[in-house]
Amino acid sequence: MKFGVVGTGVVGRTLASKLVALGHEVMIGSRSKDNPEALSWARGTGDRGKAGTFGDAARFGEILINCTQGAVSVNALRMIPRGDLKGKVLIDVANPLDLSGEMPPGLTICNRDSLGESIQREFPEAKVVKALNTCNCEVMVNPGRVNGKHDIFLCGNDAQAKEQVKQLLRDFGWESIIDLGGISSARATEQLMPIWLRLYGLYKTADFNFRIVRN
Amino acid sequence: MKFGVVGTGVVGRTLASKLVALGHEVMIGSRSKDNPEALSWARGTGDRGKAGTFGDAARFGEILINCTQGAVSVNALRMIPRGDLKGKVLIDVANPLDLSGEMPPGLTICNRDSLGESIQREFPEAKVVKALNTCNCEVMVNPGRVNGKHDIFLCGNDAQAKEQVKQLLRDFGWESIIDLGGISSARATEQLMPIWLRLYGLYKTADFNFRIVRN
Repeated sequence: MKFGVVGTGVVGRTLASKLVALGHEVMIGSRSKDNPEALSWARGTGDRGKAGTFGDAARFGEILINCTQGAVSVNALRMIPRGDLKGKVLIDVANPLDLSGEMPPGLTICNRDSLGESIQREFPEAKVVKALNTCNCEVMVNPGRVNGKHDIFLCGNDAQAKEQVKQLLRDFGWESIIDLGGISSARATEQLMPIWLRLYGLYKTADFNFRIVRN
Repeated sequence: MKFGVVGTGVVGRTLASKLVALGHEVMIGSRSKDNPEALSWARGTGDRGKAGTFGDAARFGEILINCTQGAVSVNALRMIPRGDLKGKVLIDVANPLDLSGEMPPGLTICNRDSLGESIQREFPEAKVVKALNTCNCEVMVNPGRVNGKHDIFLCGNDAQAKEQVKQLLRDFGWESIIDLGGISSARATEQLMPIWLRLYGLYKTADFNFRIVRN
């Protein structure tokens, strides 16, 4: 399958590398065509992965993944021609962290709205699925890093799109996937960031995750 | 020990009954002296529990528990004479649910502030400890209702107050208690409500809880 990874930070590169390892064709996109980290990542894959602009990556991918910084994601995605989003699954793994204020960060949007909803509202031609935003990127692509049972959440308005993402999550190694319903549940998973960040501060490692325990 | 439980809804009565069962002296307080549910609860304990106003309960208790609806907690607590809060541990188990809008509820306060912080700011004479607000009240007082290991969170600015609350949580049956630091971490636990509410909708039972899984 062809994936377009929008954003070339550590999250984007980690997801892109996993997708390449799973045998997919991947293009990572950044604001400019000549982003050194993106080009270096592509070379590191033996050119099995490609690098381009946000628009190039979106045009290339059958499934897209938003890995840009959440606070600027909507603006970044606006750089993609609308036609290259049309009908595509857009997995949003970003969190709208507000890095402008005191630490740990709050959120730039929350409570009665969310980044996932904002993206779906702004780009109705895409099928937005919020997923993977509740753990560190190393855990995203290798849940076995954290011992024992733990969960990953997803939500979105399109049932078929969610099924595709669930299969991808299973390919990543996720055994317990909790479907929280429509995209408005992105509010719920994005608002896990405040406790995630404090637990990260407490444990000094990102190798932890949430588990919902029930009978 | 003497406990003053502020608020006579199901959360307040459940906690008060547990405290009575543990051998403590308990007064539950409501807006008026003659609240039928509060009086009925007191009779049900064979008068081992007492009922009174918010102020009566606060004057009675050495440790206070805020079980009022979060959206009105600060106003409710203002009905207590300041002297009756002075130097006391005030456990805040409430969540600032916004029941005025679409369901599931959002929060009346979140992100860069929280109910726990609001209460501590408004009543500096009390030692506020945020705790128990991340699960159903039946689970609060009987964590064994949910099989397996799961966690309870607390935070607050006064280390000694937190130690007292930790002991109480252990008496309730909690084995894994995660101390998130100062009262500003109330933001983190209150913002678990959006996912808790959606999981409750999904599972149709409140017998579940959060576990932080790590190596």
